[in-house]
Amino acid sequence: MGGGHGLAASLSALRYLPGEITAIVTVADNGGSSGRLRDELGVLPPGDLRQALAALCGDDEWGRTWAQVLQHRFDSTGELGGHAVGNLLIVSLWELLGDHVDGLDWIGRLLGARGRVLPMSSIPLDIEATVRQTDGSVDVVRGQAEVATTAGDVMSVRLDPTDPPASLPALQAVRDADWVVVGPGSWFTSVIPNLLVPDLSRALHETSARRMLVLNLEAQTGETEGFSPERHLEVIGAHAPDLHVDVVLADRDAVDDATKLSAAAKDLGAELVLDEVARGGGSAQHDPLRLAAAYERIMRPPA
Amino acid sequence: MGGGHGLAASLSALRYLPGEITAIVTVADNGGSSGRLRDELGVLPPGDLRQALAALCGDDEWGRTWAQVLQHRFDSTGELGGHAVGNLLIVSLWELLGDHVDGLDWIGRLLGARGRVLPMSSIPLDIEATVRQTDGSVDVVRGQAEVATTAGDVMSVRLDPTDPPASLPALQAVRDADWVVVGPGSWFTSVIPNLLVPDLSRALHETSARRMLVLNLEAQTGETEGFSPERHLEVIGAHAPDLHVDVVLADRDAVDDATKLSAAAKDLGAELVLDEVARGGGSAQHDPLRLAAAYERIMRPPA
Repeated sequence: MGGGHGLAASLSALRYLPGEITAIVTVADNGGSSGRLRDELGVLPPGDLRQALAALCGDDEWGRTWAQVLQHRFDSTGELGGHAVGNLLIVSLWELLGDHVDGLDWIGRLLGARGRVLPMSSIPLDIEATVRQTDGSVDVVRGQAEVATTAGDVMSVRLDPTDPPASLPALQAVRDADWVVVGPGSWFTSVIPNLLVPDLSRALHETSARRMLVLNLEAQTGETEGFSPERHLEVIGAHAPDLHVDVVLADRDAVDDATKLSAAAKDLGAELVLDEVARGGGSAQHDPLRLAAAYERIMRPPA
Repeated sequence: MGGGHGLAASLSALRYLPGEITAIVTVADNGGSSGRLRDELGVLPPGDLRQALAALCGDDEWGRTWAQVLQHRFDSTGELGGHAVGNLLIVSLWELLGDHVDGLDWIGRLLGARGRVLPMSSIPLDIEATVRQTDGSVDVVRGQAEVATTAGDVMSVRLDPTDPPASLPALQAVRDADWVVVGPGSWFTSVIPNLLVPDLSRALHETSARRMLVLNLEAQTGETEGFSPERHLEVIGAHAPDLHVDVVLADRDAVDDATKLSAAAKDLGAELVLDEVARGGGSAQHDPLRLAAAYERIMRPPA
């Protein structure tokens, strides 16, 4: 569960493991190509869905080429400039087939994808945040793009509408899962929104699956600026008080105070696992194979 | 050889016959979605190539669905309104792979297409026409879209540039063919342009293939308004004086004076074949199966 680059990194890792993969993707983006498509055609923002699909592409020339086509952006100052081709393709399948899940499954088949990609909700959503501005005043900031880049401190987020319909196959996937992996990704705008869809939150509470929360490698300029790893866990707890987590996975070098983080994990019911999962060289990106190795040890521990 | 709906109709017929099919497509369109892409991104106009590919799509759910996606147009008053998805997909493959033929072959593979689609030239072209206006004055009209809809009488057309590079695999296909079928389609703006590419015209002269010219079912409002079938043949002869044609195929009901048309065909070296190839009910469209039956009788006559 998640969105954007964080989800794509997690999927790039999960594809190294056996088993079925289902990505459940936040659909609240209002910026860039997705925002323009939402405004012009009234559709779900396709960008994070596209990235997840590309991350799961078949591991051959066919799958990789179509993934590149999906990710290709037109470079011009005209009407197509900045649009990702995959966004246009996904939207056209939605218009043609009249069903989000069908359309995404067709793109999955095109890519020979190693799994399924589902929207968390069947309607486009907006994110609203309560933000403490640098002058101490408290404001409401609206829109995923605006929240992600706010200069103030994000205190909490909510969805508009507050009770969106969950995607039914997404609920089923959570119920049938052995593991549910939440994050990494933009904390307030990609990760937490999944926990705010009431039916999805309930399914996550009720499933017999184990639940893993994957922390980011650093705080994100804008939405989580200055946040410690334990603060990341505290805001999860504040937004999803019923959520029980089994494992919190963090990169060893990204954690200053393992004792504090371990205590924060315990507050969610979770064991803290520290591993080496960054690309290295100061990158804030996860390394797919290292992350896969960490997932493997957690999900299928050596006997 | 041709472009637009006429070429698509011919391909829809040829796919019923055994053998390899190669479409050679005019790339002079400057209107609609193709014209906008040409202006914004400096690419070959993809629209007629897309239509030809869709006509050759695999005869199963996979091929038909992707053909529908290719043909889907966004319906909005915004920046995407009127763009055909297949045009965007073709252009993105060109940008990604850096080669027109490679990109079109990838779309062909996506569709499971029954043949290959090639541009007649590797550069975007313009059509210029000498037109006698309704007041008797003679003008130059520039642009495929403008020539196709001119109120005056088109007297002749030429390409700009006049000596464009032919697509090499198109030349090879003409040399290797058993039959080359020219038309039907917009006479001055889709059919004749193929005969004006010097290397393609030479290949058509030199090939050992037999050559068939397929007439339209009626004159086209704008570019061939008021033209008799024999006048269509005369303008072919005027634009391609060296062209030898083996067979002229026309719909029986579209011909008023078979003797005159037969004489005009003879001037090109051709035998006239009259058959029933229209959809019927006054439609100006060819019926794919009837056209296939006519092609079959001409190309593989019963013993």
